[in-house]
Order: sequence, then structure tokens, then C-alpha cells
Amino acid sequence: MKNILLFISVFFLIISCNQKQETIINSKKLSLEEEKDSTNIKTLFNSALTDGKSYEWLRDLTQNIGGRLSGSPEAAKSVVWGEKIMKEVGLDSVWLQPVMVPHWVRGEKEAASYTINGVERNVPICALGFSIATPKSGVLAEVIEVKTLEEAKTLGNKMTGKIVFFNRPFDDQLINTFSAYGGCVDQRVNGAAVCGEFGAKGVIVRSMTNSVDDFPHTGTMSYGDLPKEKYIPTAAISSRAANILSADLKQNPNLKLYFKQSCKTLSDAPSFNVIGEIRGSETPENIVVVGGHLDSWDLGEGAHDDGTGIVQSLEVAYLFKKNNIKPKNTLRVVFFMNEENGTRGAKKYAELSKLNKENHIGGLESDAGGHTPRGFSIDANTVNTELLQSWKKLLSPYGLHDLDKGGSGADIGPLKGENVTLVGYRPDSQRYFDYHHTSTDTFDKVNKRELELGSASMASIIYLMDKYLYSNTPVKL
Amino acid sequence: MKNILLFISVFFLIISCNQKQETIINSKKLSLEEEKDSTNIKTLFNSALTDGKSYEWLRDLTQNIGGRLSGSPEAAKSVVWGEKIMKEVGLDSVWLQPVMVPHWVRGEKEAASYTINGVERNVPICALGFSIATPKSGVLAEVIEVKTLEEAKTLGNKMTGKIVFFNRPFDDQLINTFSAYGGCVDQRVNGAAVCGEFGAKGVIVRSMTNSVDDFPHTGTMSYGDLPKEKYIPTAAISSRAANILSADLKQNPNLKLYFKQSCKTLSDAPSFNVIGEIRGSETPENIVVVGGHLDSWDLGEGAHDDGTGIVQSLEVAYLFKKNNIKPKNTLRVVFFMNEENGTRGAKKYAELSKLNKENHIGGLESDAGGHTPRGFSIDANTVNTELLQSWKKLLSPYGLHDLDKGGSGADIGPLKGENVTLVGYRPDSQRYFDYHHTSTDTFDKVNKRELELGSASMASIIYLMDKYLYSNTPVKL
Repeated sequence: MKNILLFISVFFLIISCNQKQETIINSKKLSLEEEKDSTNIKTLFNSALTDGKSYEWLRDLTQNIGGRLSGSPEAAKSVVWGEKIMKEVGLDSVWLQPVMVPHWVRGEKEAASYTINGVERNVPICALGFSIATPKSGVLAEVIEVKTLEEAKTLGNKMTGKIVFFNRPFDDQLINTFSAYGGCVDQRVNGAAVCGEFGAKGVIVRSMTNSVDDFPHTGTMSYGDLPKEKYIPTAAISSRAANILSADLKQNPNLKLYFKQSCKTLSDAPSFNVIGEIRGSETPENIVVVGGHLDSWDLGEGAHDDGTGIVQSLEVAYLFKKNNIKPKNTLRVVFFMNEENGTRGAKKYAELSKLNKENHIGGLESDAGGHTPRGFSIDANTVNTELLQSWKKLLSPYGLHDLDKGGSGADIGPLKGENVTLVGYRPDSQRYFDYHHTSTDTFDKVNKRELELGSASMASIIYLMDKYLYSNTPVKL
Repeated sequence: MKNILLFISVFFLIISCNQKQETIINSKKLSLEEEKDSTNIKTLFNSALTDGKSYEWLRDLTQNIGGRLSGSPEAAKSVVWGEKIMKEVGLDSVWLQPVMVPHWVRGEKEAASYTINGVERNVPICALGFSIATPKSGVLAEVIEVKTLEEAKTLGNKMTGKIVFFNRPFDDQLINTFSAYGGCVDQRVNGAAVCGEFGAKGVIVRSMTNSVDDFPHTGTMSYGDLPKEKYIPTAAISSRAANILSADLKQNPNLKLYFKQSCKTLSDAPSFNVIGEIRGSETPENIVVVGGHLDSWDLGEGAHDDGTGIVQSLEVAYLFKKNNIKPKNTLRVVFFMNEENGTRGAKKYAELSKLNKENHIGGLESDAGGHTPRGFSIDANTVNTELLQSWKKLLSPYGLHDLDKGGSGADIGPLKGENVTLVGYRPDSQRYFDYHHTSTDTFDKVNKRELELGSASMASIIYLMDKYLYSNTPVKL
């Protein structure tokens, strides 16, 4: 008997804890039209959560192709793959948009080490995208640690012949980890340009992550206006190695670090954006675009960055078709090429869109990982920003509370214009930089439900954008 | 040059995407008092994210002690551990509250299999808490699959001599996975009581999870009022095995499944709730309690369930002390014993609280995993519910949007009363049932920042409850 009572009380607690979420849709006052929208949004979520395809698409892309850096054979395979699955979904038309992309190759696995107190420490290291190689024998030099580009500049000629070590960590106090990334990434991007000027032998940078672990995180860099003869090799070391090196330098400021990499930039390579669309039922000349980027860094499988964005974008179209929701405007899905090191795909898409006098009324990009949905960032005029924010009551039952003004994304950003409503999908960011640009960005880090909830969230805001931007935006004839 | 432009545009996008979150605190109109609260809350978050102890405490608990089922040597060790770390934090007083707990032991690893078309299939299986053993030779019988307790009852004597297989899966359409759990767990808890009545030889149940995987999930069950001679063994099988068995039964309804387990319930064992407190600076006779449960199931390490709740609860007190925030009321931290199979610790705590005429004005429980914070569930009178909901503008910058009415938790639930404000911490639930009650509930599934954000979220609402319930609740003299 006591067990029955135990069960009843536990069960009651469970139920009473949780029934609110499922009934909230009905608890807010909705207009008749909003009720219809609410029903359609629920349909999209139900469909994604019970019949979503994104997870299996992602498994295929990440495990059968893997990392797909622009210009690589894997990137070429991913284009073929992208075209194939778009056709399988049954889009009205699917095509490849040619674009020339940078072609940087990593070469042999990098190596780094130093000796302190007779002990050799191996340093997990990886070259940064666009970096030159070290000489074949590697670089061996003393290390100067700095925290900022400004501090490096002040060193001036003191860095000649040295390796400069940028070691400003993420600000863990920032709740949104993208803010912490934004506050640090200048070290990675511009460190070599600054230090090459003063004759440093190389630059190493602390990996861009909140986490303290053993994985070096790659990413793009730029030599800026530096003359070619001043180019120096640059690489990222793991955050734990950065902590250890920093401590060791306090003990022995004269220790010499060795690193070796054989990366190089080849001639630009031919590639493609992969594009498919459902033709609009009422104003097909107006386009709402949804996309992510097909290329990825080479170290992992490009799962959260940005395999998830790719499969979620296509799932938006899949969910529309499956549930017989016909977009009034043309719904276009784009798998952009080369976001990671050049954004050439994005530039080509915008350039041709302008050339062909296409009229984009809205865009949505998913390139912030596949974690649990939090909301969207809105880059639009005031009227449309307020319009999107008025959908909060329809979206909040699904955990989509964040609807603030902000940027959209690197791939749709070039489409920006007064009457173009651009939106960035914003899932939870806490775990993202654990995996970003490193070997652990693999399929197993993606949770099926979180991914599918993201697809449904994106489909929902696209549904609303298609319906309400349509009547809100002057049609260009 | 083009690279510099590339960098500038990418960097601008990153920054513009993300700066909103960090400035939102200032963008809403706050009163002077709210400004002060906002500053204190920011301090609590900064402190947790840069100097939190919870992650290392959790590592210690999960990796050096591991799973700690009530009555086990590990549970006894965890009591000693709990007392030790509470003292290390420097609480004003720390004590153990004796409580007798059920003592069920799993015995040898369970086994299950069946043969179909000449192929033997091994079935991942685990006994349910409080289940009896099978005979030493195991149980071998035909299987009847049902979806509900009602369907089982209708079978009546048709189940005599058979194994009944409950296979109603989670409803994946429910956004909150606890709702899906609540809609299924009756099969696990009451299946054996229903089928023992009709002479079934055993009951197996599909694991309580959204995920399709190979891990059986244990959990408590009850024989209810069934006379002892009708008790039958009951166990959970993995969700993938349940899918396969269901398909195989369609092909061969007469297949015989074998399973064996050697679990048993011993005499009640002595154990303890671990309690510590910071004495209130103004009305120490009023108590605000924060806690989770120290016991866990035996299969994993009890990380998300509920190691995270334990370390977050203690971190609330740690953050108060570290930042010199003196609670007006007594802040009491409780590590409850035996939530998983008996809630004896909770009952003892409430019983003694009543006996000693203690005055609890508020309580907060963390027992829903250590994932990224979403909000709180409020179980309070109307005035205090509205009071807590009025704090939304202070909490939403940290992703704490959910402040709905609902249950609090199994351990603080018995303290419920008209003037007691009970709150349940509600982190994101999407991944929780991947790990719940199974061997994968291990330390590596917990993300450091998500855990610390949870500690800070809890500290923030405790700070507000301590301050505002204080002036809002009649003091009992």
C-alpha cells in the first residue's frame, strides 16, 4: 500500500510539473488567424519530431563524407550528395551554381613540442586556414606571450626571430559564447599579419573555446596587406596546452618551442552552391531563402558546423511538402559553399541574384550549431522587426523566446537591403565552442530531438515570414 | 586586402549577432532596487562561471564514488563525502539526519534472449527497483505485447504463464520530455502489479526514453496491494530491443523469451540526509531550503540524476558566502537520501521539520538534470506566484524564460503549505531521458558551463526569494 501511495505521489508530481508546456498554446488569447498559424506550427513540430529526416541526412553527410574543406575531394562529394538529397525531397527545381573557391590544404599532421626541466611536452597544434608552412625542418624559437594585438604591436622589433603566443582566453562571464568568440578571434585572424611585420618567426594562438581541453581549434586567418615575403606560419594550440605553456614560460622565459606544418594554398578550385526551390503559389517572383553552409573545416566531420544547418534548411522544405503547406513566395534552399574560408559562395549567390534582378524578401540562416532551440536574431527594418517579434506568443511554447535585433549570418548577410528581412537561427550556444572547428565536431555530438526541434523552429518562422512578409512587402514587378 | 575585408565583414557579423544578450539587462526599465538586484545576480553568474566549484565536486562524486543506490556502500560513502564538502564550504552548521531507507540490491548482471529463425538475439535488460528475482534458472515463456495497463487488464487470464511486454513509447510530439515520461511511466511502475494478479510469469517494459538505443533504463516499481505469493519479476529492456522484439513477435507470435535476474529487497538500512545551513541575518527562524538527492540508481554514475542537483545546491551557498551575500532567512542546503526508491529522506525531513515547528518559507529543488537553464516551475499561492513571475525581467537575460505554475519536486514537495513557496529548477529537458536511470548517466555527459549556469540561476532565484519572500510572508514566532 505504501508503495502505491509512493507511486501516486511521484506520478502526480511528474504530471503536475509538466503539463503546462503542452497546454500553453491554448492559454494565451489568439485571434482566429493566429489559431490557424498555431495549428500549422504544431503540425510542423509534430512532423519534424516523428518523421524528420534531418538526423539520418546528417549521419550520411558526416559519416560517409566527413569534413569537407573548400576545394577538397570531400567538398566535391558533398555537392553531389546535396544535389541528390534535394532531388529526393522533390523540390520543383534543383541546380548547381558554379563558384571558384580558395583551395588551402593542411598537408601532414602538424607537430609541436618543447622541453622544460628535461621533460619534453608535446603540444596539440593545428595550422590555421591560409597559413603558410614552416620550413621543412620546422621553426624553433623562444616564445613571447601576449594577450592582445596591441600588446604585440608595442613589442615591435623585440619579437624578431621569436614565436609570438597569443593567449587571451574567452571571457567566461559572457552568457552568449558567441560574444566571447567575437572578443577573442582577432588574435587568430590577425596575429600573423601583425607579427609578420616585425619579423616574428611564427605565431601560435590559444584555441577559440570556453573549454579547457586537448583539442586544437583551426579557423581562418589573414595576412592582410603584408607583403608575401613577410608571411609567417601560424597555428592554434589546445587551450590546456596554452595554460601549461603560459605557466612554463613563467618558470623559464627562454624555453624554445618547436613547431612544424606543411600546409599550403593552391590555385582556386571550381565548386558550387547547391540550390533547390519550391515555386511560390502566388508570387513566385518573391523569394524567401533558407540555408547553411556545405563546406566545413577538415579536422572533424563538420557536424555542428554546419552539417546541422544544411539538413535543417532542407528539412524546412521537406516539412512544407509533407504537410502540403504551399509557400506563397518561392521557398529556396541554399547549401552555400566556402563559408569557412572565403564566403565565396555567399558572394557569388548575392552577385548573381542582383544580376538576375531576383527579389529576396526574406532569408534565414542556420550556422550556430544544432543544439536546443532558443530563438532567432532579426536583421530587418523596424516594421518587419516588430512584425517578427509579434509572433512571440506563437513561438514561445517551443522554447523560442529570443527574438532580438541582431545579425543573421555570413552567407545570407550579403542579401541585406531595406526590404529584406534576414533572420539568424539561434540555438543554445553553451556547448558550441567545445566542438567548433576541431576534431570533436562529429555526428555523435548532435542530439536527434534538438536537431529536429531546430528544423521545426526554422520551418515555423519561414511559414510565418512567407505568409506575412508577403502582404507586407511591396512586390517588385 | 580582400582577406582583410573578409575578416572585417565576418567579424562584424559575429559581433552584431551577439552583443544584444550582454546588454539586455540595461535595455529594460528597472527600478533602483531592481538595479541592485540585477547587479547582485550578475555577480552570482560571474562568480559561478569563473570560480564555480560544482564541476569538480561532481567529478569527485561521480568518478570516485559512482552510482549510490540507497543502502549501498556507495550511498554510505556519499554521505561522508557530502558532510565533508559542506564543511569545506564553511556553512555555519552541518549535520546528518538519520533515516531508514529501503535496501534493494540488483545482484548479478541480468540476461535475456530469444531465438527467431534460428538466430539468437541478446536483449539488453535490467531489473526494476523492488522487483523480485526470477527463479535461478530464469523465466522462459511466450510474450504478449500490450501498450497500456488497461489493455493488459482486458487480457485477464490469457496472460497466465506468459511474459507481458509493455511497449508504449514516449510521445515524441511532446516538447517537454518530462510530459512524455509522465505519459509512459505507469507501465514501468504498475505493470507487474496488474499482471501478477492474473498469473503472468514476468513483465518486461520498454525503457523510458525518447532515444532509440541499446541501454536499458531502470527505475522504481511497485507491487501495490498484490499478495506476496503473486509477485512476479519485472525488468526493462532497451528501446531498440523493444522495437526489434515487437517486429519479431509479428513474425512469430509464439517465440519464447528468456530472462534471468537475481535482485532482492533486504531489510531497511540506516542512512542519512546531509544538511548544512547559513544562519539568517535577520529572521533566522525562517528557512529557505535548496536541495537535490544524494542517492542515485546503480547503473551509471548518477551524474545528471542527481549529482548535478546536489552540487548546484551547495554551490548556491558557496556563491552567497564567496560574494558576501548574507541571507536574511536561514539558507539551508539538503542532500536528500532515497529519492529514487522511497523518498524516505524527504518524508523524514518534512516529518522532523513539523515536529520541530520549523518555519519553511521557501524551497528550491534541482532534480531535472544539469543541462542548460530554461527557468523554474512555481508551486506557491497566487500572490507569491505572481511575485516570482515579476522577476522575469531580472532572470530572462540568462535564458530563464519559463516561470510557470507547476510542481516543484519529490523531495521538497512534502513541505507544501499555503505560505510555502516551492520552486523546481527546470533546465532544458531534450537530452535528459537519453541518460536517465541508465549506465550512460556519467560525468562526461555534463557540460561545465551548463552546470555552472544552473548553479547561478538557482542562486539568483534563492537570492530573490530570500529578499522578497522575507517581507511578504508572516513571520511565525
